[in-house]
Amino acid sequence: MNTPFRPGLTGSRLDRADQIRVKDELLDEVRGNLRARLLKLNDLDPEINPDGTLVWGSMADRPDDAELLFLGLDDGIPCFAPLIENQPPAGQRAYAVWRHLDIMPPEEASTYAAARSLIEWHRGHLFCSRCGTRSALSKGGWGRKCPECNAEHFPRVDPVVIMLATFEDKALIGRQPLFPPDRYSALAGFVEPGESLEGAVTRELFEEAGVRATSVRYLTSQPWPFPNTMMMACIAPVEDDALTLDTEELEAAKWVTRAEVQGAYDGAVDAAFIAPPHFAIAHTLLRAWVDGK
Amino acid sequence: MNTPFRPGLTGSRLDRADQIRVKDELLDEVRGNLRARLLKLNDLDPEINPDGTLVWGSMADRPDDAELLFLGLDDGIPCFAPLIENQPPAGQRAYAVWRHLDIMPPEEASTYAAARSLIEWHRGHLFCSRCGTRSALSKGGWGRKCPECNAEHFPRVDPVVIMLATFEDKALIGRQPLFPPDRYSALAGFVEPGESLEGAVTRELFEEAGVRATSVRYLTSQPWPFPNTMMMACIAPVEDDALTLDTEELEAAKWVTRAEVQGAYDGAVDAAFIAPPHFAIAHTLLRAWVDGK
Ligand SMILES: [Zn+2]
Ligand SMILES: [Zn+2]
Repeated sequence: MNTPFRPGLTGSRLDRADQIRVKDELLDEVRGNLRARLLKLNDLDPEINPDGTLVWGSMADRPDDAELLFLGLDDGIPCFAPLIENQPPAGQRAYAVWRHLDIMPPEEASTYAAARSLIEWHRGHLFCSRCGTRSALSKGGWGRKCPECNAEHFPRVDPVVIMLATFEDKALIGRQPLFPPDRYSALAGFVEPGESLEGAVTRELFEEAGVRATSVRYLTSQPWPFPNTMMMACIAPVEDDALTLDTEELEAAKWVTRAEVQGAYDGAVDAAFIAPPHFAIAHTLLRAWVDGK
Repeated sequence: MNTPFRPGLTGSRLDRADQIRVKDELLDEVRGNLRARLLKLNDLDPEINPDGTLVWGSMADRPDDAELLFLGLDDGIPCFAPLIENQPPAGQRAYAVWRHLDIMPPEEASTYAAARSLIEWHRGHLFCSRCGTRSALSKGGWGRKCPECNAEHFPRVDPVVIMLATFEDKALIGRQPLFPPDRYSALAGFVEPGESLEGAVTRELFEEAGVRATSVRYLTSQPWPFPNTMMMACIAPVEDDALTLDTEELEAAKWVTRAEVQGAYDGAVDAAFIAPPHFAIAHTLLRAWVDGK
């Protein structure tokens, strides 16, 4: 695939092989494959090799209480993740895993992202939202089915817009109260029912910073498995640079120049802010803006 | 907003006023506003005026068993939709409402889309997916909260990619088994956990038609409230034009020229297919390709 952008957490080598998910006999076959691999996890965090690749065990490593999620085929070899149900969903923030993501190749992080999101989705959706009955895993882990009302439920993916408002030669960055000190990023927010991507960008920029977008240009996207979002990066020129901050969403926001962003990327001692990590799409987005893409 | 595309179901005049949703006293205020409007619905379908605009009643029209969903402010006037809970979720397909959408201005259809998606989400999520307890409406209708485990649940929006594979001077259209006779459209599919938009386009084109994308270009997006998707339209050149169809997803698929698409749009008697309706983003997508955008 030719692409002008290389966001993190993309490019998994796994073929999701969805034709296998829907056929019980094919699922039995991949589960019984002697070469099948099971992803090694510490709860939700990955075990990784020194080169940042994921550690896989054999199906013999399967914990007694784990169900299996079929992730796909790696060069024909079936790959699974273990689902241990009896744990509460983790919080939205997961800074501990960022140390791992920092050294994982994007294609490995991409495989991990799918597994992590899927596990968290199951943990938060053990009961049928239509009738309250406990549901059962289906489609090799890519769904749940209710034995009472027969409703089928599929993994949730929340679309999120992340955008750089621009005015003249400056771009707008902000920080949420929970960010590490001096870390700034692009503004972001969930797409709501009844909205387009462009509509969500426009609404969020006005809600959070009081700026009015005059157009919206999509750049690229990446999954973000904390717990299950798909981040879509955009650039949006705005009418003027006067800011009215929603201080419950943003602790601070400021306009920066391309030189200031470059300084942050270079880790300059007098940098205007600390840049988002390379595996976050905000990094790709700021980089694209500095490079004039 | 400047935009080269004008997809249907976008441009609502309502300010979603999310600052009101989170404050009980502000919600009480808008609920008690004497000018407040209540959307008139026949179950999930809209009542419309001869010019295609939505019909609104007053809060006195509120059915006894309806909760209120705060849609936003129209020029300062609070607008609500009624939520009647005790009905099963409707199916995915809703061709009856298409007659209405055909004559509704996009900005009216946009307001309606938000209301419809929100109502269907509540109906399918009356119970907490974490613990199975009946949950209660929160945030003016933009959430549900579990009284047992305190989990908060937010309306689901499913990101869907809809894409035109192109090869030389042809584009690929297909038809699902449930489509009306001779109707063809662009291929489409849900984004899965751990995927990017570009990844989903690439996977779906290969799964459904056996073609390999060499790049993916995003064009525009729209909400599609059947029940709650956000459609993202892309163009993807592919390696060659040999097709291998997944006949469970696609009943048929074929390559068409720009002249053939134009013929379908003109309603020519010998048209190669019947085009998607103007309010569907597939229409916008095919139009953009014909126009060389
Ligand atoms: Zn059920
Ligand atoms: Zn609960």
